[in-house]
Amino acid sequence: MVEDLGQAGDITSRSVIASNAEARVEIVARSAGVLAGAQAAELTFTLVDPDVDVQFRVIDGSGVAEGDVVASVEGSARSILTAERTALNFLGHLSGIATATNDLVQAAEGTVAKICCTRKTTPGLRVLEKAAVRSGGGVNHRLGLDGAIMIKDNHIAVAGGVGPALAAAQASAGPLTSIEIEVDTLDQLDEAVAGGASVILLDNMAPSTLRKAVARVAGRARLEASGNVTIQTVRKIAETGVDFISSGWITHSAPILDFGLDFSG
Amino acid sequence: MVEDLGQAGDITSRSVIASNAEARVEIVARSAGVLAGAQAAELTFTLVDPDVDVQFRVIDGSGVAEGDVVASVEGSARSILTAERTALNFLGHLSGIATATNDLVQAAEGTVAKICCTRKTTPGLRVLEKAAVRSGGGVNHRLGLDGAIMIKDNHIAVAGGVGPALAAAQASAGPLTSIEIEVDTLDQLDEAVAGGASVILLDNMAPSTLRKAVARVAGRARLEASGNVTIQTVRKIAETGVDFISSGWITHSAPILDFGLDFSG
Amino acid sequence: MVEDLGQAGDITSRSVIASNAEARVEIVARSAGVLAGAQAAELTFTLVDPDVDVQFRVIDGSGVAEGDVVASVEGSARSILTAERTALNFLGHLSGIATATNDLVQAAEGTVAKICCTRKTTPGLRVLEKAAVRSGGGVNHRLGLDGAIMIKDNHIAVAGGVGPALAAAQASAGPLTSIEIEVDTLDQLDEAVAGGASVILLDNMAPSTLRKAVARVAGRARLEASGNVTIQTVRKIAETGVDFISSGWITHSAPILDFGLDFSG
Amino acid sequence: MVEDLGQAGDITSRSVIASNAEARVEIVARSAGVLAGAQAAELTFTLVDPDVDVQFRVIDGSGVAEGDVVASVEGSARSILTAERTALNFLGHLSGIATATNDLVQAAEGTVAKICCTRKTTPGLRVLEKAAVRSGGGVNHRLGLDGAIMIKDNHIAVAGGVGPALAAAQASAGPLTSIEIEVDTLDQLDEAVAGGASVILLDNMAPSTLRKAVARVAGRARLEASGNVTIQTVRKIAETGVDFISSGWITHSAPILDFGLDFSG
Amino acid sequence: MVEDLGQAGDITSRSVIASNAEARVEIVARSAGVLAGAQAAELTFTLVDPDVDVQFRVIDGSGVAEGDVVASVEGSARSILTAERTALNFLGHLSGIATATNDLVQAAEGTVAKICCTRKTTPGLRVLEKAAVRSGGGVNHRLGLDGAIMIKDNHIAVAGGVGPALAAAQASAGPLTSIEIEVDTLDQLDEAVAGGASVILLDNMAPSTLRKAVARVAGRARLEASGNVTIQTVRKIAETGVDFISSGWITHSAPILDFGLDFSG
Amino acid sequence: MVEDLGQAGDITSRSVIASNAEARVEIVARSAGVLAGAQAAELTFTLVDPDVDVQFRVIDGSGVAEGDVVASVEGSARSILTAERTALNFLGHLSGIATATNDLVQAAEGTVAKICCTRKTTPGLRVLEKAAVRSGGGVNHRLGLDGAIMIKDNHIAVAGGVGPALAAAQASAGPLTSIEIEVDTLDQLDEAVAGGASVILLDNMAPSTLRKAVARVAGRARLEASGNVTIQTVRKIAETGVDFISSGWITHSAPILDFGLDFSG
Repeated sequence: MVEDLGQAGDITSRSVIASNAEARVEIVARSAGVLAGAQAAELTFTLVDPDVDVQFRVIDGSGVAEGDVVASVEGSARSILTAERTALNFLGHLSGIATATNDLVQAAEGTVAKICCTRKTTPGLRVLEKAAVRSGGGVNHRLGLDGAIMIKDNHIAVAGGVGPALAAAQASAGPLTSIEIEVDTLDQLDEAVAGGASVILLDNMAPSTLRKAVARVAGRARLEASGNVTIQTVRKIAETGVDFISSGWITHSAPILDFGLDFSG
Repeated sequence: MVEDLGQAGDITSRSVIASNAEARVEIVARSAGVLAGAQAAELTFTLVDPDVDVQFRVIDGSGVAEGDVVASVEGSARSILTAERTALNFLGHLSGIATATNDLVQAAEGTVAKICCTRKTTPGLRVLEKAAVRSGGGVNHRLGLDGAIMIKDNHIAVAGGVGPALAAAQASAGPLTSIEIEVDTLDQLDEAVAGGASVILLDNMAPSTLRKAVARVAGRARLEASGNVTIQTVRKIAETGVDFISSGWITHSAPILDFGLDFSG
Repeated sequence: MVEDLGQAGDITSRSVIASNAEARVEIVARSAGVLAGAQAAELTFTLVDPDVDVQFRVIDGSGVAEGDVVASVEGSARSILTAERTALNFLGHLSGIATATNDLVQAAEGTVAKICCTRKTTPGLRVLEKAAVRSGGGVNHRLGLDGAIMIKDNHIAVAGGVGPALAAAQASAGPLTSIEIEVDTLDQLDEAVAGGASVILLDNMAPSTLRKAVARVAGRARLEASGNVTIQTVRKIAETGVDFISSGWITHSAPILDFGLDFSG
Repeated sequence: MVEDLGQAGDITSRSVIASNAEARVEIVARSAGVLAGAQAAELTFTLVDPDVDVQFRVIDGSGVAEGDVVASVEGSARSILTAERTALNFLGHLSGIATATNDLVQAAEGTVAKICCTRKTTPGLRVLEKAAVRSGGGVNHRLGLDGAIMIKDNHIAVAGGVGPALAAAQASAGPLTSIEIEVDTLDQLDEAVAGGASVILLDNMAPSTLRKAVARVAGRARLEASGNVTIQTVRKIAETGVDFISSGWITHSAPILDFGLDFSG
Repeated sequence: MVEDLGQAGDITSRSVIASNAEARVEIVARSAGVLAGAQAAELTFTLVDPDVDVQFRVIDGSGVAEGDVVASVEGSARSILTAERTALNFLGHLSGIATATNDLVQAAEGTVAKICCTRKTTPGLRVLEKAAVRSGGGVNHRLGLDGAIMIKDNHIAVAGGVGPALAAAQASAGPLTSIEIEVDTLDQLDEAVAGGASVILLDNMAPSTLRKAVARVAGRARLEASGNVTIQTVRKIAETGVDFISSGWITHSAPILDFGLDFSG
Repeated sequence: MVEDLGQAGDITSRSVIASNAEARVEIVARSAGVLAGAQAAELTFTLVDPDVDVQFRVIDGSGVAEGDVVASVEGSARSILTAERTALNFLGHLSGIATATNDLVQAAEGTVAKICCTRKTTPGLRVLEKAAVRSGGGVNHRLGLDGAIMIKDNHIAVAGGVGPALAAAQASAGPLTSIEIEVDTLDQLDEAVAGGASVILLDNMAPSTLRKAVARVAGRARLEASGNVTIQTVRKIAETGVDFISSGWITHSAPILDFGLDFSG
């Protein structure tokens, strides 16, 4: 909100709207999807003016249809007009993520695969975007670099192979430190299992290869598939038996879900 | 970067990569577009480690083709791997915006219309996203609510009409305060000109109506068209003679431009 | 308030005043002027102790006479004595500015000229000082360097003249970017009008020259006079027909308006 | 500087001045006085651009004559023009305080009295203003409420007299806690000495009364005179033999010392 | 609390405890000592959730026996479990300091000596630790380097002796600036008294030497003893007649006082 | 450092030490232990003055003997004396933790057990204290509440048993979310293994019970022992075959390791 108010605040409302004018408005979905960001939107209004009353009719994670009233807002007209844009920006961006996540979750329904996000998030908004993924029915990958050990191809290259990388990781791990490693081939997969990885990332493998990997590991580690995950491909990937399917697209490129603000009185 | 490092920093690199290992990597465009965010990406690396050397080969606003090396990065392998994700997140997000903006700019080429953004930006990133619009060849609308007076339909409704709203705005305006007002009809347009607005926003008007508006105003105010602006429609809007065409989509829903990081030594 | 409390807080009140002692005091004007800073003063008390009750009897912008009670304050004696000095510092400094501004506004009454401030403000207090100017009946110039384009003599020198400077400014301007330019001569004035400046600053010109400038521009741009503006000269400047008269003195050198705190029970 | 840059920075210099233009300017005193704030002014330039070279020719506390060049500044023209206003605001405000302080110091020369400031400072600038007082040859009173115990009339009233107030203060005092008390009469003065005060504030007493107080205390405590201290009265007060003379005017109402910035190449 | 919540908050309570589960718990002392930190502990709960009700039954400075219930806490089970650890960390650490201080205070009872702390505090917690010393019955030394002038052996060495160091200190001292100096010998003590020190630190002197120092100074300055202060030695030091005894151990190495949290319903 | 400098900085050094005096000092261990906090100590000096040169001769994790010079510091005498206390406070506190940790690590040598810390840290210093544990040869438990799911007795009580608590945890877990649960009995241990816990905390169990637990789990989960861990008991606990032994004492109550600063020139 600070970036929108700047230093001098909303000079339009201050000059054009009487300081005692009251308004009652409704936030309306302009298309169908899954709601997320209700708390951020509500907070935007109450930070501007603690006396504005915001009532959401649906909670994060609910489906909304085009034309649904998701919230009503009542209070000082100046305050409502000042907060409007930022509140809708939060709601649109986060509901866009929840909707995109939910599309994948629906497509994978009935399989064991959970849909999860990555660290490809908009700088500054990761915590909110990760919550939006949960609202869409997904689960979260590590929040940041300090959440767990995740050894990628470049780490393996510098460390001198899957085995040495996993050995180094084990040595420094405390009781709650999970270790994941990315593998490109089934041979690397065997090394990773032997090295005691808790989770193994299968990057850009075809469904047939994923199926082989699942069979080979036989429950000794959890498996995550990534790469080329779209609404078209996700079902096939989910049916291979992997535990997790991760997508960067749901956080970095999902279009917003459009909301508007209608005056009701 | 702080949200990615968390409190404990990159525990993977710390455990798996030797503290004195050096690396040299290249940032490569995975598709074609316009670059933006070079400075934010560079800063991400140097905040993690001031001794990492980052050399961008192209500057913000340059076109890039798929496979182009846009920068080389050299220094501690730990530091580079730690900063990688956040740097690419900035580059991808901001170049996505510059690319979307530039598509509109190209389509309007040869007309007087400038492409500009709105306040529909990602919360927390407005300043960077506005700079990305400039990199794409667009110009910026007001940065925030304190930058100028912009009277929208809801303000007009509460203030009691175009005339009273403009009169109130003029009374409080200092020497450098611009005043813009949104109108829905040509009658309102006449009122807005009479009231001394510097800029008039023509919302959701058909090209034929825009053309009439341009003729009617005859240079007494600058005109901005908004609503239903896409790569398909923008040329027709530009040809009506309006001064500015504004789009929220270029900042709130443009997909990222994909970049990767390749080890070169 | 933080700079006054330091880290350990008010050790005098803590050691000398019983923690449950209550007090009722009045804030009294020690000389006549215009009030500003009521909100900052009230906030100072309530930040120290949210249970202190502060009631201002007059609002910012009101005239006060020597001896007028402007507010009553009731609550914990410790809290009131702790906040007293900072609250009075705000009130005195900001009312001093409002009073100085109002002196100029009164002197220019009946002309079209509005009194406005400059960026010559006390570092850290600009937003409050600009509001105090409004309380005194003045209007605000741009808040900071990002609020508008204002081309001064040094910019013109580096850019190579009035024409090139204005052309460069126009090229980067969005729909709401105002452009002002400073001129020293009537020749430069003609160039500035031709270059499309929205506002022109006439620096240090005699009233007779200002009058010529007003006639020459004939409404094609707004005109601002600055330089040597005092309570003695301001009327003569205002009568030339300029739109704005700006003064740095009202923010950087106005003496405080004195207020005291009297115990009433 | 942040309040001047806003979020988008100096849009004038960015649009009008070439990014590689260099400039060399001099900061010149427009009237005579004592310099203070050189470090704050220099920091303003280098925060905007670490490559700007600022060389002060005189240090804080030096006298300057009208027309003296106090510093030269060299580097990017954009950076210099961006930082100019804030740097001069610091220099003018703080040198104004040093000059006002020094006027009092000069007037009291040859007596034992030291000139000191109060807590009547501009909110947010206390540390810098206290340093400016030192540059002017004065000494500092406590920095804030946590620096020492200072018992004023209102504290005495609430605590039930000079004796009880001092006893309470002594009980909580550590080895380095100074205790000062304000007295209005010579009877209170006796009580204060008996109660073990280290410093006694003699508020608004005539020189003849001050002289009696000095004789009566005979070195058992240090004495500070305040109230009605001006350039006209300060000598008479100093000659009474008090140890300190405090003035709020030097920090809250001293006019700025004017400085300008001349291009030299 | 922020360091414990991290960015994603308490993921255990969020996943395992129903969002509407309520709990009522008691904070119980697991050993005997003096309470401190009640306010910090209460604030920890209410920062996590303003609706948690925290009632302390004893106030800071009270003695507690093993098994005493010091507070009851009621509200959302999630919130209580989230805040528990940080609240107990504050309570244990600060009560440990109050207890250690009080042990010394008790041992010195009946003498004039006050127990005081030093600047050897845990980085970041000084203000709270100094308050805990007061809760234990001690008084505070200066809060930080800006609170008073304290000349140690290294300062004397660099300044060229006790006399020159004190002279320099006096020259810059304002009315409320206390001056303390550390001496190692009785000769230095004489110099310090002659130089006008308000307080003299007698470092690492045997009780017999301290007794001589007290006699020699005869009230002309206050005396502080430090070095080798333990529960065994403190009585002997106090009986020498010194005004203050300072200990670093009470803030930097006191073990925590153990508290636990029992569910009561 | 900020809490020590306060607002006005080191007024002793400023008044007593010449601004151009140089010094060379050595940081010397006053007793034997393991070093930690070198970086924090160095940063303290360079934050005060970037030109102070600090050279540590040993790195964090090294053993030091009484009298060992661990670092030399050279530069402005004022700056060194200003930073001294805070730098030694960091070094003493963190080396105290490393030393206490290392005592336990040495005692457990030759077993599989790793020593780890808890969340019982000093508020505000957790990250540094956790690093000190690593310097002492220990490993880290989760950094905060967002690092992993850790189900304690109170969570189990509220959730309705070990089974339901683990089921709820699994449902929300992403690929890298570790799950630990605390058990009091061997029956609960069986439930925990059946519920798929990755780590099981055995609280306050006798070595004989721990041995049975190790046998019963047979590698299906990692085991952590806590409660009553001292230098006397740790060996017996380690010999039971548990994977981790956690101690709160090493972070919340370890006495400081004493360091002094000797002038060498």
